[in-house]
Amino acid sequence: MRLDGPVLVVGAGLLGTSIALALRRAGIDVALRDVSAENLRIAGGLGATNVDAADVRPQLVVVAVPPDHLGTVVAEALLGTDAVVTDVGSVKGAPLAETRTLVGAEQLTRYVGSHPMAGSERSGPFAATEALFDGRPWAVTPHETAGTASVELVTALARVCGATPVTFSPDEHDAAVARTSHLPHLLAALVAGRLTDAPRAHLALSGQGVRDVTRIAAGDPALWQQIIAANTAALSDLLRDVREDVDGLLQALAAGDRASIGRVLDRGVQGTSVIPGKHGAPAGEVATVFVAVPDHPGELARLFADASDIGVNIEDLRIDHDPAREYGLLELSVAAASADHLRGSLEDRGWTTHR
Amino acid sequence: MRLDGPVLVVGAGLLGTSIALALRRAGIDVALRDVSAENLRIAGGLGATNVDAADVRPQLVVVAVPPDHLGTVVAEALLGTDAVVTDVGSVKGAPLAETRTLVGAEQLTRYVGSHPMAGSERSGPFAATEALFDGRPWAVTPHETAGTASVELVTALARVCGATPVTFSPDEHDAAVARTSHLPHLLAALVAGRLTDAPRAHLALSGQGVRDVTRIAAGDPALWQQIIAANTAALSDLLRDVREDVDGLLQALAAGDRASIGRVLDRGVQGTSVIPGKHGAPAGEVATVFVAVPDHPGELARLFADASDIGVNIEDLRIDHDPAREYGLLELSVAAASADHLRGSLEDRGWTTHR
Repeated sequence: MRLDGPVLVVGAGLLGTSIALALRRAGIDVALRDVSAENLRIAGGLGATNVDAADVRPQLVVVAVPPDHLGTVVAEALLGTDAVVTDVGSVKGAPLAETRTLVGAEQLTRYVGSHPMAGSERSGPFAATEALFDGRPWAVTPHETAGTASVELVTALARVCGATPVTFSPDEHDAAVARTSHLPHLLAALVAGRLTDAPRAHLALSGQGVRDVTRIAAGDPALWQQIIAANTAALSDLLRDVREDVDGLLQALAAGDRASIGRVLDRGVQGTSVIPGKHGAPAGEVATVFVAVPDHPGELARLFADASDIGVNIEDLRIDHDPAREYGLLELSVAAASADHLRGSLEDRGWTTHR
Repeated sequence: MRLDGPVLVVGAGLLGTSIALALRRAGIDVALRDVSAENLRIAGGLGATNVDAADVRPQLVVVAVPPDHLGTVVAEALLGTDAVVTDVGSVKGAPLAETRTLVGAEQLTRYVGSHPMAGSERSGPFAATEALFDGRPWAVTPHETAGTASVELVTALARVCGATPVTFSPDEHDAAVARTSHLPHLLAALVAGRLTDAPRAHLALSGQGVRDVTRIAAGDPALWQQIIAANTAALSDLLRDVREDVDGLLQALAAGDRASIGRVLDRGVQGTSVIPGKHGAPAGEVATVFVAVPDHPGELARLFADASDIGVNIEDLRIDHDPAREYGLLELSVAAASADHLRGSLEDRGWTTHR
């Protein structure tokens, strides 16, 4: 089924407003609803809506409210309109279960959950952008009795927003994000939480590693509390496994059992290698080149102009903060076959590099 | 005491060879020893040594061998020379304890452990560089009976290598790195290890978060096994705390106890805020600007040339991989006051940005 609109978006936060903007970019009529008049005013000011929510007879309703309210708002939309209804929450089983208790089998065929894999450390409509979903995966999670046309329409929504739809059952989706998102978030929070006990002087030895591990723990705790509470079953299974791992490590440390410690570390190395690489492809052979970059405007530009002249494509990059001096170490990931060429050519141009 | 050399470096791996290169950069004579003739040949080829190890009467011996061998090699150096001796291992209590059993109180005054906070995912002399320590913290960890002149000489070594010396007792150092390095490494390995159980299709939902959390888990397991085994006491305390946290989370999930989940998340947020910012300063107000960058050579150069013209200093950057399309999202961190200016100016130049 083609997505022609109009679309009613319920919830003018970061995701709802970004979806509305992406739909408007595609020329589709959008009505917006939110309990906050302030959010509506901001989203309207950004150009996220062109149709009055009171009059609209939507082809599609997109529910983008906080996780705790998804089930009731989805049910209201199913009962109050004849539109296809989707939500964009981070957990799919819980809102489906709640919706099922609130509507009949007939209405339920018009509901198909979904979950765009995009966001920001910021929240609210001010952080919204039509480009938020460009190139991101967007999970579409039909339940067993979802109608084919409804699944097609939600898949079309993902495409119109610039995302790549990926289909999962709701339970599969929740198991997947428990492992790839919710467990990492909780363990990052535990590592970060332990830092609050440390004498300040000890934190001077913080390197890039602990910064990377804990970065996501800065996310909005009110939102994450709802996400985690909604994915209890899948997360509890994983947390029990982690507790066993921690018990095993404690025993291995007490017994000086190097082999067991080694197995945990080996498995970690293996885990890092199964994360899909860039563009969803298997990770190719990549090498890292470090370059010292003085910390003032223009130096990065000069470096990238040089790298561009050299003709090597940069796969990934990261600034490794220099804790004491006025420059940073830039970490450039490039195809392994190009690393020596890049390094030598940068050295020729006066840059200090190492591998 | 001034560092005049000659310096004998024992162990021509990444750290030993890099220290030798940094000393040669400063014009100090360096002799090199390693059980591997291959390592010596490579390090020599890089210009890391100019004096024969057989003839040298060193002012300072730097022991840069794997953690398991630190104690015996430090003791050999104390007994075989009248030099000051340091090691550069990641754990300080264990090698000190072993050294103490092997030498007399008189010799022990000449030993002062240290730990440069620098490294690479690569290892061996090929990865070495004289710039490895530039601007990094370098922990100097005198024991109670260390001689003042010995402490001064090891502090001078850190400075000559371009690092910033920071003084800790050996136990304080080990407690600090257990929290800021070893625990993060182990929990990153546990998160990564759980990915190995996942159906491959589920990993398509991996975002930047899980990539960041697990990055350090790719480090050399043979080296990390030794580091972790050498820091058993401090790490076990932290792991017991983590086990309690995990038990608490499991109970909270089972009971639907939102407040307890929220406390763990709040504490995580607080933990991310206590890590010292760039250049050791408290984290300033930083904002993030996202820019869509086509994935071929030259585009990053063009972007940085534009950012440079705009005159905004980029504090940090990161490419957020696009799993499906031929471009990436570049995340630029800039002073909060400059973010709107940067964003608007980039848009004016035709870039697609969002906050």
